[in-house]
Amino acid sequence: MLSSHAARKTRLDTLRPRRHFSKPMAKATDDTRLSKKAYEACLPALREQLVQLQVQLQAAPFKILLIVAGEEGCGRGETINTLSGWLDPRGVETFAFREPTDEERERPLMWRYWRCLPAEGRLGIFAGSWYTETLREQAAVRAPKTTTRLDHELARIRHFEKLLADNGTLVVKVWLHLSKADQRRRLKELAADPDTAWRATEEARHHHRIYDRLARTAEKIRAATHQPGAPWTIINASDSRTRNLSVARLLLHRFAAHQKREAAKASAPARPKAPKSLKPAGLQRLLALPLDQKLSADAYEEKREKWLGRLNRAVRAAQAKKRSIVFVFEGWDAAGKGGAIRRLTSAIDARDYRVIPIAKPTDEEKAHHYLWRFWRHVPRAGLVTLYDRSWYGRVLVERLEGFCTEPEWKRAYAEMNDFEEQLTEHGIIVIKFWMHVSRDEQLKRFREREETAYKQHKINAEDWRNRRKWHAYEIAVGDMLALTDTPCAPWHLIPANNKRHARLQILRTATKSIEDALA
Amino acid sequence: MLSSHAARKTRLDTLRPRRHFSKPMAKATDDTRLSKKAYEACLPALREQLVQLQVQLQAAPFKILLIVAGEEGCGRGETINTLSGWLDPRGVETFAFREPTDEERERPLMWRYWRCLPAEGRLGIFAGSWYTETLREQAAVRAPKTTTRLDHELARIRHFEKLLADNGTLVVKVWLHLSKADQRRRLKELAADPDTAWRATEEARHHHRIYDRLARTAEKIRAATHQPGAPWTIINASDSRTRNLSVARLLLHRFAAHQKREAAKASAPARPKAPKSLKPAGLQRLLALPLDQKLSADAYEEKREKWLGRLNRAVRAAQAKKRSIVFVFEGWDAAGKGGAIRRLTSAIDARDYRVIPIAKPTDEEKAHHYLWRFWRHVPRAGLVTLYDRSWYGRVLVERLEGFCTEPEWKRAYAEMNDFEEQLTEHGIIVIKFWMHVSRDEQLKRFREREETAYKQHKINAEDWRNRRKWHAYEIAVGDMLALTDTPCAPWHLIPANNKRHARLQILRTATKSIEDALA
Repeated sequence: MLSSHAARKTRLDTLRPRRHFSKPMAKATDDTRLSKKAYEACLPALREQLVQLQVQLQAAPFKILLIVAGEEGCGRGETINTLSGWLDPRGVETFAFREPTDEERERPLMWRYWRCLPAEGRLGIFAGSWYTETLREQAAVRAPKTTTRLDHELARIRHFEKLLADNGTLVVKVWLHLSKADQRRRLKELAADPDTAWRATEEARHHHRIYDRLARTAEKIRAATHQPGAPWTIINASDSRTRNLSVARLLLHRFAAHQKREAAKASAPARPKAPKSLKPAGLQRLLALPLDQKLSADAYEEKREKWLGRLNRAVRAAQAKKRSIVFVFEGWDAAGKGGAIRRLTSAIDARDYRVIPIAKPTDEEKAHHYLWRFWRHVPRAGLVTLYDRSWYGRVLVERLEGFCTEPEWKRAYAEMNDFEEQLTEHGIIVIKFWMHVSRDEQLKRFREREETAYKQHKINAEDWRNRRKWHAYEIAVGDMLALTDTPCAPWHLIPANNKRHARLQILRTATKSIEDALA
Repeated sequence: MLSSHAARKTRLDTLRPRRHFSKPMAKATDDTRLSKKAYEACLPALREQLVQLQVQLQAAPFKILLIVAGEEGCGRGETINTLSGWLDPRGVETFAFREPTDEERERPLMWRYWRCLPAEGRLGIFAGSWYTETLREQAAVRAPKTTTRLDHELARIRHFEKLLADNGTLVVKVWLHLSKADQRRRLKELAADPDTAWRATEEARHHHRIYDRLARTAEKIRAATHQPGAPWTIINASDSRTRNLSVARLLLHRFAAHQKREAAKASAPARPKAPKSLKPAGLQRLLALPLDQKLSADAYEEKREKWLGRLNRAVRAAQAKKRSIVFVFEGWDAAGKGGAIRRLTSAIDARDYRVIPIAKPTDEEKAHHYLWRFWRHVPRAGLVTLYDRSWYGRVLVERLEGFCTEPEWKRAYAEMNDFEEQLTEHGIIVIKFWMHVSRDEQLKRFREREETAYKQHKINAEDWRNRRKWHAYEIAVGDMLALTDTPCAPWHLIPANNKRHARLQILRTATKSIEDALA
């Protein structure tokens, strides 16, 4: 059993994403049937191995995500229940993803999956998830979803699974395959037994009637989402015992291989190097920013009032349309992020916004993908989240301090662009600020903080340490500006040597961005 | 200003809960009005103090919960917005509690408030919360809620606020008072300005028409929830400037007093003493439990199958009625909790239950009340949560190891009873097991774990350490059994020297408890 999985896996792993499976799925034949006796003989050793897997997983630690999909009647629930019975339930969580709740509907599609992702050392089982939903949708409509729309969703899923796999999650995707004949037999069996008759629903019968069409869609879905790190394994579901064993063995096999890979990775230390600009255009844009604006206190106050009123109206207009707003504040230490946030929030009802200060992640956050802690704060419909520092830490401090590896931060640009695209696609208005001060201005403000009693808490040794890496940061900021300045979520560079000017420009930019998005 | 607050506070603090306010609320007079100039002169110093409060709060650290309630038109939102503008928004979260979401409706009433509680070092502002809701309900119905029902809700709220205050949260409750005449004036003002006309709603007008009735209810609510640690402060809201300053100064004042109290507490070290039984009846019940049951493997298997089937049907029947189930597993180390949970969950669809293993709290959990980590896992309607160890750790390991003070664990019995009562009131079926083995049996199992390769991860030095405290634990368990064995959530003592017998009895007890609850 193991060797055939291994062989299939190796073969599939070499396939590129989007390429269709080159071989038709194996048809169920009678010799895959397993006697009860033979089945039970396998169990003690298998269960022991599974428990050992969980013990090792906790020590590893990485995350396992097992996705179980398949044709109607393939026994998805049964398989998961059997497997759960073999595992220690304290380390496993299973999610069914039925109707989304209103809290889920108010966020981008993937939010509900993000919130259910397993933490390090744990195994998450997704019963169907996005695959089931996509297939069900396809079955429900007479005219299948337009190809473009489906392709777009599949790209989203492919990206999500890649992101998890890249981050060290072991993604195991199982397709429980049932032939048309087996499905007919299965539905008859279900209907015949009064205990299970309720499961032979009209929807199940409908799926059977359009088996061929759904099979083609399913194949397309699998092919489009079959990629290194998240390959599909098709398991014959005609015999439930064989099916159960196959899933368990696949899990064991993939785990052993993954464990080896992760161990090899861990031994390679992440050393921060002196950064080299990936895209000098960003750095040029940063350095070209004029910083010596003037603005009198009177002119500031007059304009501020005007813009605060207009911002207030813009935010309320967005709320009326259930549009949420996400602000990202990045900038040099002492560039005035806190002050700018205070001015901006003064135009918003306190009950409608939340400021998320990003410092060291909590241990729950550390046990997840780095984007998890930002996903969890995506606002509900009509509300506002302000991130005081953000996911961009990945390509700034984490890049420069070696908190993540070079492949990790290099991947992050695309991951963050995709994250923001998902937000904007859902109708969320994303507004990003880089607050820029000169090195001299920063020094002046640092000294002022040290000398002013009530500002001393705002400055520490780390700020001085970061300051010494100014030029390295400039390069990292430049790359960030160049690589994550997207049409849906552009960067706004704010000259901030003059605090009044900076605050006003932020008010103005925020207001206009919201107005434009609503226009 | 401060001194008048201080005076009122002292006076109110000496009142017992439930006792009505002895003095009528101060009427708004013209001399409470503050000129714009006088107001603005106060601000710089005040804002500085507020920022300092936040800096000190982070270092303290405890939590602040500011609850702002008041009559219709009192300017709750304005007050909160002004205060938020003075504070650093990065340390504040404001919640409005509008319509509950479906995720909230599926849990007990207080769940939505628990999930929004501030963490240590942070300030949470609840705009209205349970008070607004209760008042609105009273206003909406022609015949006010029956007194019993209202009293019950108020007892619930009083308990909740006491629990927070006992745990070191600074609870500041502000009632913004508006006289009938001022309310009329305010509504007229709102209606006259096109920018605010939308706020003079029909509901607001209705509230004005029944001002006197609502005022009586509000007074009753305040009196019933006015208690040490969570006193009400009534602030005259007729002049918005005075009102804003009063709220800010009250916050500063209460903070300073609280900080002193907390500092005094911290200096008293928690030393675990050799425990003395609080209620010997519990210990006697524990010691009297016969442990030498026999059960053949065949008899076990036959009965197990029968009970698993019946349990499965019972759980599905509960689901059909949207009734959730909460299991609590407590017991000696090596008593077989894990094994029992596996057998029990094998009767439930993996997509419908979640096992919550309780180990060391995460840092997010540590920053909250000890019940917070259990509240967050309360299941949605129709789902099952199994706690593998639970809140009872407070009166077991935390009591014996001195992780909490004596007043803390002594308070916990009532707190936990109340928690379980809230669950059962909401329709959740709560089933609690204590798995009991003899000391000799534990020794045998510990040795077996040490000698069996694949069981070694289940035993460590701490288990041996706990074992040496057997008799102390017996006393703590006895007290727990005696003090938390409530009609709505009784303890089931499971003799567990014989694993088969224990598992079967758990299946049987679980099934019957569910069946009884549904009957």
